[in-house]
Amino acid sequence: MEAIIGKVKYHHQIINGEGNSHNNNNHGGSEVNDYLQAVSEYRKTFASKQDVLDNTPDPAVREMLLHMEQIGCDTTFDRFDQQKPQCSFGLAGSCCRICYMGPCKITPKSPKGICGADADLIVARNILRGMAGGVAGHGIHAREVLLALKNAAEGKLNLPILGEDKVKKTAVQFGLETEGKTVNELASQIADILLEDLSRTVPGTFRAIEANAPEERKKVWKEMDIIPIGAYHEAFEALHRTGAATDGDWENVMKQFLRCGLAFVWSGVVGSAIGTDSLFGIGNRSTSKVNVGALKKGYVNIAVHGHLPVLVSEIVKQGRSEEFIKLAKENGAEGIQFYGVCCSGLSAMYRYNDVIPLSNAIGAELVLGTGALDLWVADVQDVYPSIMDVARCYKTTVVTTSDSARLPGAEHYGYDHQHSNIGETEALAKKIITRAIESFADRRDVPVFIPSYEVDAEIGFSLEYIQNRFGGVKPVLDAMKSGKILGIVNLVGCNNPRVVYEKTVVDIADILIKNNVLVLTNGCASFPLLKLGFCNTSALAKTGEGLRSFLESDLPPVWHMGECIDNARASGLFTTLAKEAGELIKDMPFALSSPEWSNEKGIGAALGFRLLGINSYHCVHAPVHGSEKVMNFLYTGTKDTLGSTMNVEVDHIKLAEMILQDLREKRVALGWDKE
Amino acid sequence: MEAIIGKVKYHHQIINGEGNSHNNNNHGGSEVNDYLQAVSEYRKTFASKQDVLDNTPDPAVREMLLHMEQIGCDTTFDRFDQQKPQCSFGLAGSCCRICYMGPCKITPKSPKGICGADADLIVARNILRGMAGGVAGHGIHAREVLLALKNAAEGKLNLPILGEDKVKKTAVQFGLETEGKTVNELASQIADILLEDLSRTVPGTFRAIEANAPEERKKVWKEMDIIPIGAYHEAFEALHRTGAATDGDWENVMKQFLRCGLAFVWSGVVGSAIGTDSLFGIGNRSTSKVNVGALKKGYVNIAVHGHLPVLVSEIVKQGRSEEFIKLAKENGAEGIQFYGVCCSGLSAMYRYNDVIPLSNAIGAELVLGTGALDLWVADVQDVYPSIMDVARCYKTTVVTTSDSARLPGAEHYGYDHQHSNIGETEALAKKIITRAIESFADRRDVPVFIPSYEVDAEIGFSLEYIQNRFGGVKPVLDAMKSGKILGIVNLVGCNNPRVVYEKTVVDIADILIKNNVLVLTNGCASFPLLKLGFCNTSALAKTGEGLRSFLESDLPPVWHMGECIDNARASGLFTTLAKEAGELIKDMPFALSSPEWSNEKGIGAALGFRLLGINSYHCVHAPVHGSEKVMNFLYTGTKDTLGSTMNVEVDHIKLAEMILQDLREKRVALGWDKE
Repeated sequence: MEAIIGKVKYHHQIINGEGNSHNNNNHGGSEVNDYLQAVSEYRKTFASKQDVLDNTPDPAVREMLLHMEQIGCDTTFDRFDQQKPQCSFGLAGSCCRICYMGPCKITPKSPKGICGADADLIVARNILRGMAGGVAGHGIHAREVLLALKNAAEGKLNLPILGEDKVKKTAVQFGLETEGKTVNELASQIADILLEDLSRTVPGTFRAIEANAPEERKKVWKEMDIIPIGAYHEAFEALHRTGAATDGDWENVMKQFLRCGLAFVWSGVVGSAIGTDSLFGIGNRSTSKVNVGALKKGYVNIAVHGHLPVLVSEIVKQGRSEEFIKLAKENGAEGIQFYGVCCSGLSAMYRYNDVIPLSNAIGAELVLGTGALDLWVADVQDVYPSIMDVARCYKTTVVTTSDSARLPGAEHYGYDHQHSNIGETEALAKKIITRAIESFADRRDVPVFIPSYEVDAEIGFSLEYIQNRFGGVKPVLDAMKSGKILGIVNLVGCNNPRVVYEKTVVDIADILIKNNVLVLTNGCASFPLLKLGFCNTSALAKTGEGLRSFLESDLPPVWHMGECIDNARASGLFTTLAKEAGELIKDMPFALSSPEWSNEKGIGAALGFRLLGINSYHCVHAPVHGSEKVMNFLYTGTKDTLGSTMNVEVDHIKLAEMILQDLREKRVALGWDKE
Repeated sequence: MEAIIGKVKYHHQIINGEGNSHNNNNHGGSEVNDYLQAVSEYRKTFASKQDVLDNTPDPAVREMLLHMEQIGCDTTFDRFDQQKPQCSFGLAGSCCRICYMGPCKITPKSPKGICGADADLIVARNILRGMAGGVAGHGIHAREVLLALKNAAEGKLNLPILGEDKVKKTAVQFGLETEGKTVNELASQIADILLEDLSRTVPGTFRAIEANAPEERKKVWKEMDIIPIGAYHEAFEALHRTGAATDGDWENVMKQFLRCGLAFVWSGVVGSAIGTDSLFGIGNRSTSKVNVGALKKGYVNIAVHGHLPVLVSEIVKQGRSEEFIKLAKENGAEGIQFYGVCCSGLSAMYRYNDVIPLSNAIGAELVLGTGALDLWVADVQDVYPSIMDVARCYKTTVVTTSDSARLPGAEHYGYDHQHSNIGETEALAKKIITRAIESFADRRDVPVFIPSYEVDAEIGFSLEYIQNRFGGVKPVLDAMKSGKILGIVNLVGCNNPRVVYEKTVVDIADILIKNNVLVLTNGCASFPLLKLGFCNTSALAKTGEGLRSFLESDLPPVWHMGECIDNARASGLFTTLAKEAGELIKDMPFALSSPEWSNEKGIGAALGFRLLGINSYHCVHAPVHGSEKVMNFLYTGTKDTLGSTMNVEVDHIKLAEMILQDLREKRVALGWDKE
């Protein structure tokens, strides 16, 4: 299938791997004008705040946006409009600020940077640095969880290891001797192995890949010479390679991009997921309230926002203790209620009943704008600094808990850089709950505005749940072969104001389930699906007949799998189904879509699935318009090697049709359907 | 002393360390206009190619620039002019491309980015990412050398360990048991320790700092909470912290900037220096020919360019072998001659006699433009992609040797990503020399243009040489106290076309030695000093009387200490002299100047000296105009904590006066001089 790249009229050349035989076409004026024109056209598709007000699907979001206007608080959507028109060179990736001779940009008058770098090299370097940022995001997430697992296993952190099954299963995968070993001993060994994958510098075996990746993929990656040494090393090497006048070859830069993708997946995502599931268990399928209508007046309302589960688990535990419930009541509250924002919310929702998810990261300002929150716990990633302005309006106490992420005006209670106070986790959590209750008492005069939208959502889907429910994955595969399930799409990703907030995700899900595509979801993109009933069996009414018959009456058509690192659950299901079918993953009717992706982790998440051979689908362009070669490589250039492409189409309805077409073609190729 | 920040009229506030008490001033329109005005004024000071033709001090450079014009080859200086006017937001650091909702920039209309990041946060994040790039540059350099040391020590790489003294001295510093241990055993242990400092993820002692840093400094750094965990980790953490909506506090971002500075120094610089000196020895003081006039017609001329010494050592060894000299002669050459460009040249010059240094990185195009080079060996860093255009004109064969750095059109012979072929070093070197001889034979028709400038330079200065020469450092200290030596300045750094090529370095050196300041130098900045006779005893004629009397008749007033990682030699001398004096380093009349700094390593190099308490002096601004707070922090904000400031003055004569004033004030404070 040929990828359609927005309105860009580039001729597609598939890049071959021969490193020494580049044609050295200088960027002439006409080519530069082409890309600037393409960027200009792309920019015209960007949504405005008015578009969001008119078309975002969740009525609670619309009400809150109007409320924010009334109280005079800017939101992401206001600031997006203020930033228009966005710089063409930044959008195209053709601006270089890597050394301090510049900045340089590629124009008809200046076809090369001061060092001689052309547009291909500049664009490639920028996207690789972005990828390295993504590796670091999930990588530090993994490290935090693995240090906690190690410390808990070794008795330095007072946390029980709840995921015994996960520990034992992982130990077997890593080939550890399990006989006579305690769970703590195995957990400590697993943490050490994954921390070594993170930090290895002397070349050696990448253990998580060796133990867990499909043999066929290991062979593909080895042939492409993209197996990472370790996650730290590959991010470091990416910074080095893109440094001033180091790598001069955009293809070699993009090779490191792929290598970083594997580090992202196998250290960042898989490392985080194993660590989290080992510490806290996989979580069970259950039902949760969702959306701001679930906010409870009269309670000490505490939101957790970010990605790290360790301190959050202790905060929730303390907030449920008789000691603190008593204290809350003494201060005039009916009790203590927890809410979740972004991935912390999703992770907590799975594992501790009654942590109510409210919103993804972009919507955090809106949640604060209800005035209902007494305390807001922020850790790392996707915590917009803008939340402080809203929190100040409503006297919400904001607490930061990571040395990596402070906010001016917030109080800080967390581990120090060296984790020397990891033994004080309980005391930190108690301090935070105490501050929440104090904040509750201090802000009884704050007006509260809560749009009355809430809904129940079925959550807690995982490979393990599916295997238990169906007695293995074969019934799912049979349903796929028979056509009851046309295919499976993992619909995930961040939000991006370039498109109408939450609309692409909702509309794509709508089209997919109508066409019998089973949808998996997690992270920021899952919030609209949770809020708008897609994770509720009521959505079966708009589900295609085949899929509906497979789901019986108690399974929704969208399966919520957790936070963003739970992409590992989706890839686990894909890998297991392909194995069961005896087919290569790349030939199966699977797809990944992150229509609204916006941050550096988003590059890695989509690439992670492409590395498995699964096509990815998006409504937002990567900053690669500046180089036809890099754009072609990124979007279609790994078709022959990885067996997958990155497909960008700003019209999300067309994107959904492209996904359906892809799944149908794969079914025909597999012989499951006729042409 | 109050720092003068170019023409920027910011009021200087010293930042205090209290993290929770920021004032949250939004950037209003007037403040934005102020900084855009300041950047606009700064941009007006940038040099043009014509300025370079008129004022660059080396006549060979001027001749070659004109020659390049005649043959129609662009140079750095042409491309710098083509890039004018540089983007204000890029220059000011106030453009953010970290997530893909943007790009964002701070203007009166848009005082915050889409996520809510203000100018302070955006500027801080950008400069921290630059610093992380610097850590990676020197860090990968260190890793390459340490892997070679480890492999050589363990018999997997056929290289002798020539720096026995360095190995033994370092082993003692690290507290290793040396009794009964072979040099190889100790070298292997040292490599392991330094590789662990590079890659540590579980918090623990940073061994190089613990073993080598002055106690007083360790206390300062510990109080500031900036001791790194490991170099990989801190670069990774810097990427994470600056990721989309992670750290919202510019002060916390800048704290990581300082922490990365220590990782840069103690893993990147010290790790590289220990590894290199252990493998190849410290090198001896000797005399070398310098500049393009030393190019030999009729020889197989081979240039080495970059930073990594391992393969270069083998290439030079093979090129000197009878086997290849015979082959060269059979092909019509008189012999094989090696030349050096950038740090590879300096490192090779010290350690293998008769490797003639020709130019720093920016001048590489000019060297190629002579047409005299048959083969060019490039490894990593400061190898401008533009060299390929010139090489193509002159049929010079370019060979790349690092997996981190390829060049389209070059041939590649090097270690793979996993170093699986490190045992094939000799074969790689032989292949490269063979290609050089073939290239010589192929290009007898190429016209050669060699400006007739060459000079002798005294090289090979090190702490060890000084201690041997003077029987310790006391005679140097005595000369300082007596006023024969006013102070010592380490004059280093890259080149930057924002100022007239090589002129600031030469003029500053001129003023300093005239005023009895002993000058140390290395790296790119040392080339003009080598080429223009400052490293020759003839420069004593323009040296102040006091310094001249100390130098006797056989020492030049500028001591050449090697490649850029040999900043470790200068800091070693500074530290040893302060200890001998019983004074804190920050109180001694020392300074660092990198007038023309231009790349990410340059940020780290200057910061490294400031972390020791030594003020740094520059003619080029960091991209911090966008935030008054970050600029103040970077330039003067560590005065109370580190005891040092970063001083930027675009007028290099004024800068030299500022350095002299600084040294004089310190002498008065020490009681060495009267007011």
